[in-house]
Amino acid sequence: MALAAPDVPELVALARAGQPRAVGRLLSLVEDDSPSLRETMAALAPHCGHAHVVGITGAPGVGKSTSTAALVTVLRAAGRRVAVLAVDPSSPFSGGAFLGDRVRMSEHVTDPGVFIRSMASRGHLGGLARSTPQALRVLDAAGFDVILVETVGVGQSEVEVARAADTTVVLVAPGMGDGIQLAKAGILEIGDVYVVNKADREGSASLERELSSMLARAERPPGSWAPPVLAATATLGEGIPAVLERLGAHRDWARESGALQQRRLRRVREDVESIALTSLRRRWARAGDGRQLDALAVRVLSGQLDPYAAAEELVDG
Amino acid sequence: MALAAPDVPELVALARAGQPRAVGRLLSLVEDDSPSLRETMAALAPHCGHAHVVGITGAPGVGKSTSTAALVTVLRAAGRRVAVLAVDPSSPFSGGAFLGDRVRMSEHVTDPGVFIRSMASRGHLGGLARSTPQALRVLDAAGFDVILVETVGVGQSEVEVARAADTTVVLVAPGMGDGIQLAKAGILEIGDVYVVNKADREGSASLERELSSMLARAERPPGSWAPPVLAATATLGEGIPAVLERLGAHRDWARESGALQQRRLRRVREDVESIALTSLRRRWARAGDGRQLDALAVRVLSGQLDPYAAAEELVDG
Repeated sequence: MALAAPDVPELVALARAGQPRAVGRLLSLVEDDSPSLRETMAALAPHCGHAHVVGITGAPGVGKSTSTAALVTVLRAAGRRVAVLAVDPSSPFSGGAFLGDRVRMSEHVTDPGVFIRSMASRGHLGGLARSTPQALRVLDAAGFDVILVETVGVGQSEVEVARAADTTVVLVAPGMGDGIQLAKAGILEIGDVYVVNKADREGSASLERELSSMLARAERPPGSWAPPVLAATATLGEGIPAVLERLGAHRDWARESGALQQRRLRRVREDVESIALTSLRRRWARAGDGRQLDALAVRVLSGQLDPYAAAEELVDG
Repeated sequence: MALAAPDVPELVALARAGQPRAVGRLLSLVEDDSPSLRETMAALAPHCGHAHVVGITGAPGVGKSTSTAALVTVLRAAGRRVAVLAVDPSSPFSGGAFLGDRVRMSEHVTDPGVFIRSMASRGHLGGLARSTPQALRVLDAAGFDVILVETVGVGQSEVEVARAADTTVVLVAPGMGDGIQLAKAGILEIGDVYVVNKADREGSASLERELSSMLARAERPPGSWAPPVLAATATLGEGIPAVLERLGAHRDWARESGALQQRRLRRVREDVESIALTSLRRRWARAGDGRQLDALAVRVLSGQLDPYAAAEELVDG
């Protein structure tokens, strides 16, 4: 593999023309924090903002990967270009190989309208969450209509990825805990659309009722989106078109109400702030600026300055 | 309890005169991130840099608290003022109450030359590690000759607190794992003095030999400090004067070689950097500066700017 500096404008053009290899190389530039990262992000900027980013989360075993595959099938039938970003160590998409769902997903692997990328094997989850916003910008600029971000619904990462989505789908399934446990898991706050998967199993109707009544009790400001609860059997594709319809309805509502703009603004703010803090840390570690920090540290050590005053001098120069 | 703004100069004067209540109030100002924090740190600055900060770490059960108490006894007999900062949830000093070692420590509780503070019950460990450098500055400025910082030897916190110390003592005990396990726990890198406690127990002599030979095999630059391995039985006070002698020898070596200055400079650098980053995050969240961040986010959303270029504008204004 060539190690020459990539021709970023050409890669962007090829990615936008639908070449999966170019998309993959751009994603690698972003994930690896390559020297071309800045140039890449600048080249992508004019093309961003069109994709509908859909987060798909839920506990292991609720059928996230099967549901993702089923959503892809229906989206492709409607002629939409779809990208799947699997940020989930338990996902069968992990490592680029399918460990399960072979039959359902195999049809998509050779489909040029579908791009699948796992970010699970690359470094720790914190770093992964950091590069996710930039990976989404790559897929967005590459012209995918819908980006499905699959995350395991446990802990901090799912909350961060839910923030990165325009619309978040929370999957639950019967036999995996009652409403109280769902409430404790914090999922009642993060979903825009709830899906009771495995609707052919016993207990699904009561889980649907319980979830609906808990969501109905939540206090929401007037004009808010009321998250619907749908039933689906992803293995059979049942209920999936209705889920997609609700995802579109949420996006339309969010666009018209201004909620989409608010959510994206908050996301970009956080992203810009995080990049700025990282760049400052690097700057303060470099030769010239590092000497300034050293000089301040010497003055603190000698008692001329306290650490807070030194920090102020560092910041305001 | 009065909520009026504290008279910081008076508190500092009283603390330096040996009044424990004043020391306690200054520590609370620091731990609670109070509005008087800046003024407090500025008032302390001219008085810092004299205390010998000794970190005491090791796995639960090796006898850290007993050893700390025994060190205090010997230091007091030599007329030194001693502060104990217990950053260890399992410490008997936790919560300000002694759950064990009552007999050994009780003599110190009424001794005005000894100040004991637990930081275990205050918030999570991350926040605690953040305020530790400032708490050490309070105790240093208050004129304590030696500050013993007791931490549990598990995970990130111990490494951070070891960084905050001038000299780090690592305690081990027979029957708690062999040399390989010690190496895996990462303790061979952090100690300046190693103590095999419970030296009256079976296996202590072989643990001492094994530890010595592992430390001797470590590659060190010429002129480095070679960490000694000592035996002690803290419950009887045996071996403790020799430990103190080695702590003093390390401090003297570190002062003469310049290693102390290097270590303290690195510590202050990290502290200043961390305060600067926190203050920038707060600033960017405030009204005027928050609007700048909002304006940048709007330009990113509209495709005029990428997040990296926006971060650069934020930083360089």
